[in-house]
Amino acid sequence: MCEANAYVIKDGQEQLIMESVDIVEPESDDTWRLVGIFGDRKTIRGRIKLMNLVDHKILFEEK
Amino acid sequence: MCEANAYVIKDGQEQLIMESVDIVEPESDDTWRLVGIFGDRKTIRGRIKLMNLVDHKILFEEK
Repeated sequence: MCEANAYVIKDGQEQLIMESVDIVEPESDDTWRLVGIFGDRKTIRGRIKLMNLVDHKILFEEK
Repeated sequence: MCEANAYVIKDGQEQLIMESVDIVEPESDDTWRLVGIFGDRKTIRGRIKLMNLVDHKILFEEK
């Protein structure tokens, strides 16, 4: 499976916000909907800073 | 390997723009840098419309 883990940078640290993310889609400007492989959902405000798919990593930064 | 293929929607059709994308990162507003697993690079102008990691798919739409 090729899901990824989502992190947000807070106070210079990467904090895990969701594991096993399957779908990432924009909900509105700088708001993203994450859907996990089990259908769990989370909304994150911020911008994508980096996605590294081979490392299974999506990194957001808060605006 | 968990790379994805990048597509852009043009005239209502999904057109493949790059295979085996490893890294996606913002270059500037609505401009994204794609780096493939072999180090090949491409810049795409547009917005992310959907990422489906399990399906290895990143979909952009032009602004």
